[in-house]
Amino acid sequence: MTELDLDDPVNVSTTAGRIFKIIRDHGPLYGKDIVRRTGLAKSTVSAYVDRLMSVGLLREEIPDGMKRRKLKVAESAGYVVGVALGQSHLSVALCDLEAEIIDSVGGPVDLVRESPEKVLNRVISYARELEQRAGLGPSALFGIGFGLPSPVDYSHGVPVNPPVMPGWDRFPVASFLSQEFTCPVFVDNDVNVMALAERDKGAASDLAYRKGSFLLVKAGTGIGAGIVINGEIYRGAKGAAGDIGHIGIDGDGTLCRCGNTGCLEAVAGGRALAARAQAAARGDRSPYLAEALVRGEALDAEALARGAACGDEECLRLVASAGAYLGTVLAKLVNFFNPSLIVISGGLTNLGERFIASVRESIYSRSTPLATADLIVKKSTLAGRGATMGAAILVLDEVFSHRNVGMLMRKISD
Amino acid sequence: MTELDLDDPVNVSTTAGRIFKIIRDHGPLYGKDIVRRTGLAKSTVSAYVDRLMSVGLLREEIPDGMKRRKLKVAESAGYVVGVALGQSHLSVALCDLEAEIIDSVGGPVDLVRESPEKVLNRVISYARELEQRAGLGPSALFGIGFGLPSPVDYSHGVPVNPPVMPGWDRFPVASFLSQEFTCPVFVDNDVNVMALAERDKGAASDLAYRKGSFLLVKAGTGIGAGIVINGEIYRGAKGAAGDIGHIGIDGDGTLCRCGNTGCLEAVAGGRALAARAQAAARGDRSPYLAEALVRGEALDAEALARGAACGDEECLRLVASAGAYLGTVLAKLVNFFNPSLIVISGGLTNLGERFIASVRESIYSRSTPLATADLIVKKSTLAGRGATMGAAILVLDEVFSHRNVGMLMRKISD
Repeated sequence: MTELDLDDPVNVSTTAGRIFKIIRDHGPLYGKDIVRRTGLAKSTVSAYVDRLMSVGLLREEIPDGMKRRKLKVAESAGYVVGVALGQSHLSVALCDLEAEIIDSVGGPVDLVRESPEKVLNRVISYARELEQRAGLGPSALFGIGFGLPSPVDYSHGVPVNPPVMPGWDRFPVASFLSQEFTCPVFVDNDVNVMALAERDKGAASDLAYRKGSFLLVKAGTGIGAGIVINGEIYRGAKGAAGDIGHIGIDGDGTLCRCGNTGCLEAVAGGRALAARAQAAARGDRSPYLAEALVRGEALDAEALARGAACGDEECLRLVASAGAYLGTVLAKLVNFFNPSLIVISGGLTNLGERFIASVRESIYSRSTPLATADLIVKKSTLAGRGATMGAAILVLDEVFSHRNVGMLMRKISD
Repeated sequence: MTELDLDDPVNVSTTAGRIFKIIRDHGPLYGKDIVRRTGLAKSTVSAYVDRLMSVGLLREEIPDGMKRRKLKVAESAGYVVGVALGQSHLSVALCDLEAEIIDSVGGPVDLVRESPEKVLNRVISYARELEQRAGLGPSALFGIGFGLPSPVDYSHGVPVNPPVMPGWDRFPVASFLSQEFTCPVFVDNDVNVMALAERDKGAASDLAYRKGSFLLVKAGTGIGAGIVINGEIYRGAKGAAGDIGHIGIDGDGTLCRCGNTGCLEAVAGGRALAARAQAAARGDRSPYLAEALVRGEALDAEALARGAACGDEECLRLVASAGAYLGTVLAKLVNFFNPSLIVISGGLTNLGERFIASVRESIYSRSTPLATADLIVKKSTLAGRGATMGAAILVLDEVFSHRNVGMLMRKISD
């Protein structure tokens, strides 16, 4: 048999990319661990590691009290910007190559009323501000990641059929930002990037989930899910996967903003819950909420959680019913998808542990015993950081993909 | 940089496996097409192709009127056995290396009453009968694939928590058969293997779906789904993925055999439909069914389809409502999973095109416009062959996986 073509750039890229990915996922690692995990010869690993170090993508670290060097990503060899755009707030973060937030800035937006150009120009000025504060040169940014509350055509970087921001439909977000920056720009649905943050930094970062499948459910004004399979975002045929907020509750007639009736979001989203809290306060069904209303407090998730903690029966009932609605839909998805883990985030988690318990109970009582045998349902611990960190991770996954690591090496060494 | 380790068996296996897979998926192919699709050097491709031909896994074919040879899988270089076990019927097929059925045999079983040993001994005698008829030698079988109506722990080859066949729970199906045959045995859920048949030979065999995601929905006495993502079966954390028959219809109190209420299978499965047809016949709501009952005909899906074709209003209503129940659940899964294609198979497809139209209508009216934009919902055309062919494909996917092709080459050439 003839030999493999050694000058084939595909092979070189793939091998360098494979080694780099193992170090990203599992590092810091000793050289022998890389040999074991790749199945490559020691000399091959050593040559690639030297090359990755010489271009500055890896660095050595000697653990306390040890003699041998471990290898890790050279986290300060470059930076990425993570952008999280919500319906009423914009956050932009500067992150290192391990997606740790170095600095961040943000402010209010009104996605329904403001034009995409206006909002994106604000993104640009925030990013420039962060670059300046950190004293970064023009080539320090490896990429920009952008999460926004709409289905996204990922390959083109454009939002598609956004439910509440009509001016953004097919607006070329990625190419608009690419005109300003020389680095690549990646745009995805906000819940997808939040799932990446859970995978690398949050509730799913245990090794078992990194390679398994899990759902990140954001329950706030809107309700959506990010689906991760074998460590990668599953986007579906049209980028619409995970759009669980418009799953119908059978027989429910509540009108949704989307025009359909009985959508989960219309029945159990933040807006529906606030309306129920208002009605309970005004209808004298909840002493706690009635007093809160008199005091001029917002009747939101936190208020319901406080009322429930005080033993207010209507607050307890509203918290439990919000969890039960969400859990009923998730129970169906658990039967279908059989994930290892569901991470709940978003404003409704402010309803407290009772809410999570109610979600859990609905899932356990309505899914098959096998599908729930080892299922874990837990609250995200990333709080507000999930979306910007996740947007940064989106960039790192792309820039450091198998193929791109080879290209990056050639680009840096040219 | 040092060179790649050429004697590394992992690299050799991977390259041979990659070339073989491209020919399996897209063949017959010219050598230049393989070069284009792999990105490998022409000399490398040529050397591996020669080796794969010398061990008998590939053969040449010269298309009519053409001069240049194309390469394809040497379909008669070996055989696989596909076993499809249903609740009341066992089918065993002998297939070539392209999963075409050469010969098959089958007969009735009673999974609830018969012991696993008894049923599996029948599988063995059927397989031996097929070997004998084809005059196969002891090493001709590359493997045995087995699809059965239960969630399966795929890595161990054992059914887990089977809903209607308690004696099969954790019975070591794969190792029982391995004691009789020297080839490997692979066991999976029946709907999963049916999905593989659709991928390679049926409604999903268009290139677009082979690499996309689709669902195979079997709607019969039981209702289940096989999930294919990027050409591969998605099994979930416990092998329970796709168990859609026990998804609850909100607010429905129909008792299911699983002990829960309102399960899709209990409301829209073959048994529920037959009960409704009986009631309609006896309650004088359907002249067609009442006459069929008098004639002693079975009141099954075919009878309902005939009644609907004659314009019997109750038959039309029952057909439409079965489709609507299934479609309502699928609409939720379409929002979540955003597949490109849903293929419907199983006994309920005997309800005819009206049934499929009703499923489709429920999905389109209740899913988001984006998720249904390019969604295709169609009936399987594989009829009874899907399960045995799919079980054969399960074996071929495993035996011809990247890593195994290299091992197979070494084994054959030793």
